[in-house]
Amino acid sequence: MSYLNELKERVYKQNLELVKQNLVVLTWGNVSAIDRESGLVVIKPSGVDYSTMKAEDMVVVDLDGNKVEGRLNPSSDTPTHLELYKAFPEIGGVVHTHSFYATSFAQAGKDITAYGTTHADCFYGDVPCARALTKEEIENEYEKNTGKVIIETFDKLDYKAVPAVLIKNHGPFTWGKTPEKAVENAVTLEAVAKMAINTRLINPSVERVDQYLLDKHYFRKHGKNAYYGQGDNK
Amino acid sequence: MSYLNELKERVYKQNLELVKQNLVVLTWGNVSAIDRESGLVVIKPSGVDYSTMKAEDMVVVDLDGNKVEGRLNPSSDTPTHLELYKAFPEIGGVVHTHSFYATSFAQAGKDITAYGTTHADCFYGDVPCARALTKEEIENEYEKNTGKVIIETFDKLDYKAVPAVLIKNHGPFTWGKTPEKAVENAVTLEAVAKMAINTRLINPSVERVDQYLLDKHYFRKHGKNAYYGQGDNK
Amino acid sequence: MSYLNELKERVYKQNLELVKQNLVVLTWGNVSAIDRESGLVVIKPSGVDYSTMKAEDMVVVDLDGNKVEGRLNPSSDTPTHLELYKAFPEIGGVVHTHSFYATSFAQAGKDITAYGTTHADCFYGDVPCARALTKEEIENEYEKNTGKVIIETFDKLDYKAVPAVLIKNHGPFTWGKTPEKAVENAVTLEAVAKMAINTRLINPSVERVDQYLLDKHYFRKHGKNAYYGQGDNK
Amino acid sequence: MSYLNELKERVYKQNLELVKQNLVVLTWGNVSAIDRESGLVVIKPSGVDYSTMKAEDMVVVDLDGNKVEGRLNPSSDTPTHLELYKAFPEIGGVVHTHSFYATSFAQAGKDITAYGTTHADCFYGDVPCARALTKEEIENEYEKNTGKVIIETFDKLDYKAVPAVLIKNHGPFTWGKTPEKAVENAVTLEAVAKMAINTRLINPSVERVDQYLLDKHYFRKHGKNAYYGQGDNK
Repeated sequence: MSYLNELKERVYKQNLELVKQNLVVLTWGNVSAIDRESGLVVIKPSGVDYSTMKAEDMVVVDLDGNKVEGRLNPSSDTPTHLELYKAFPEIGGVVHTHSFYATSFAQAGKDITAYGTTHADCFYGDVPCARALTKEEIENEYEKNTGKVIIETFDKLDYKAVPAVLIKNHGPFTWGKTPEKAVENAVTLEAVAKMAINTRLINPSVERVDQYLLDKHYFRKHGKNAYYGQGDNK
Repeated sequence: MSYLNELKERVYKQNLELVKQNLVVLTWGNVSAIDRESGLVVIKPSGVDYSTMKAEDMVVVDLDGNKVEGRLNPSSDTPTHLELYKAFPEIGGVVHTHSFYATSFAQAGKDITAYGTTHADCFYGDVPCARALTKEEIENEYEKNTGKVIIETFDKLDYKAVPAVLIKNHGPFTWGKTPEKAVENAVTLEAVAKMAINTRLINPSVERVDQYLLDKHYFRKHGKNAYYGQGDNK
Repeated sequence: MSYLNELKERVYKQNLELVKQNLVVLTWGNVSAIDRESGLVVIKPSGVDYSTMKAEDMVVVDLDGNKVEGRLNPSSDTPTHLELYKAFPEIGGVVHTHSFYATSFAQAGKDITAYGTTHADCFYGDVPCARALTKEEIENEYEKNTGKVIIETFDKLDYKAVPAVLIKNHGPFTWGKTPEKAVENAVTLEAVAKMAINTRLINPSVERVDQYLLDKHYFRKHGKNAYYGQGDNK
Repeated sequence: MSYLNELKERVYKQNLELVKQNLVVLTWGNVSAIDRESGLVVIKPSGVDYSTMKAEDMVVVDLDGNKVEGRLNPSSDTPTHLELYKAFPEIGGVVHTHSFYATSFAQAGKDITAYGTTHADCFYGDVPCARALTKEEIENEYEKNTGKVIIETFDKLDYKAVPAVLIKNHGPFTWGKTPEKAVENAVTLEAVAKMAINTRLINPSVERVDQYLLDKHYFRKHGKNAYYGQGDNK
């Protein structure tokens, strides 16, 4: 079980990273990670104060949501995380926040348009706002249905190329190969959301970035021809 | 009197928490708490620097506003706090701030519309902006009348379900079962106010969240069927 | 000369307070104080890094601008400070910043309207934006003329009741009985400017606060009937 | 090579200064400096975490982009920096950031208009937004072409008088006599961008500052008649 302890430590650290990056107010937000071999997911406990939380407070659940380890309740958003791990086989971490600007887009029910290279370096196209959940989807298995609506949103989108979504009237989810990468994507999402609002204030008729600039920046950092960084993005 | 000393310590800490949460500039803002058994209220002294203030500087008054303990003058807003404690029997703490975004709504004379789950998790409906005080209400017993106008605003609203109000042209008051909870509500209020402004900038025709999403999120955290957190919200 | 050393210490501390209060970027901004008995003014040196500046770097000048003490050049804005000390006999400190929101109003050429009690607690009416300086006033004795235009702006205004002004296309000046109070007014000015922008975003047709609310709040903190604080505002 | 080590230390420090000044999120942004005698350029490595980066991680390249020293890959933006050093003979440092407000102008495709003296103290006129790169310029030698488009933008502008540019849909580049000055210009650029947005929100019909105020402030700090500071601006 030492692998799980290491994963708890990483999940714990990334939850604190959310605070450090100003993406979290009070106890809002959670990070999880999966051990693909065992199919076990490590996630933040529900409603616990970040300042007193410890690595060993992280909760372990299986992909059906059964608690395997931990004395606390897992995040109430756990069923959403689990849907994502089941549908998106190459992700290793999931993040949910109520970060101000991304959440404002979610509340407005609008996609975050790709206006520049900061966006393109991380998200290969607009970040979609999912459709609203129906009354029925909200009243029964709400958190699981939140996950299902995300998956529906990515029906014709590549979850690896756009590792983020906005839940209408709620807030963003991001993911990545690792919990560290998922947090990084949450940081970038908030930055591009903030800049998108200001970009429109400056130029209300601004349009999406050209496809070839999007291609250039995205593939400069991702895939086999990537040349940004120290070779660890490929 | 050791219970009062403990309450002074808590009120003192929560006044500092306002600073830590960036809700306070200079000496603006105050937290109080009530000991329901004795009917005594502990409140921040008026106009004192947060950086030099001590727990023993907290002032104790009775519900008629008579000073019972303390060498300093109580907050000039004390009569407002007292009206709330008298009218709202289940609250244990009251907070007043001039936090930027909530105060901007108060100055604009507009309710904070419920646009998302961050709002719904804490406030079961729009946060109301009270009517303006009349000239007469301002010129005589201004602070007491501020409390009375809040109570009038909640005539047909449940103060436990919407633990916040905006005083027109002034700023927000929040409350809760404890001073800690009242401060938490002030933090959430500022966050949802900030996001409400940005939500409207992104989508000027955005509408209030659906009632069933409001229901879901509010009752996920409050009441006998709550399942968020570690069982301490019920 | 020990009084001057004490004044240097206070001016130094208040210059650092500008940084702490996020009113200053790089070396922009300066605080001065006057010793009314000797007519000597202590001011920050020009363009010096706040992180290495020491109390003994403060420069002493007389009211004609002659350097009396100090190895560094005084702030290039010194002639503006001196005009204010000469025209406003009851002030003891002057502050100039390029704080973001107050400067944005100055650049927009607009007064900061009194929209609420945060404003009224400190400024008894709108904070005026001075007229633009003429080409001639800019090309000759620019900094001195900046002071003269402030004084002209206050021809029919009480400088004690509205201790702040916006220099068109430039930024704010504030003053007070002491350098500490002048800095406090600069902090308040920035806060009310930020909230005024947001107030208008929320409600584009918002109007100035009623005169009787302005009266109530201003005189609650100022003058012989003040009852805010610990008796030190009277 | 001790001069290079000193330059590495300075470049390293200025890269951290970007973080301290809140101009950088994650690993976005880079500072370089040139030793004009040897024609060697010291630059931040690509995609390295600021918190673990060391002075000796800085990479040395010649003006043709050949790596001369260092075990890491240089910033992917290196070819842009090199073009600037070759075209602008009097600069000693170059900075690139994705700072929020300057980048928002770049994404909006709009110049930053000179609205006040904060701008005029540093930039002698509007900060231009370069034309968009063509598909061909993006697909081949993108970073080099980014440099060439900057140089084209300054065909009729003085790079010493306006030491900044916005790359359309990307973000700002600034430069200066030294890397320290280039970073200072990046700080000022972000501040004036933020204030320009707010200035327009307050007054949508605001116009550029008068030429004589621009002249006054720019030449107060630059050139042989400068009188701001301690004589080190001349």
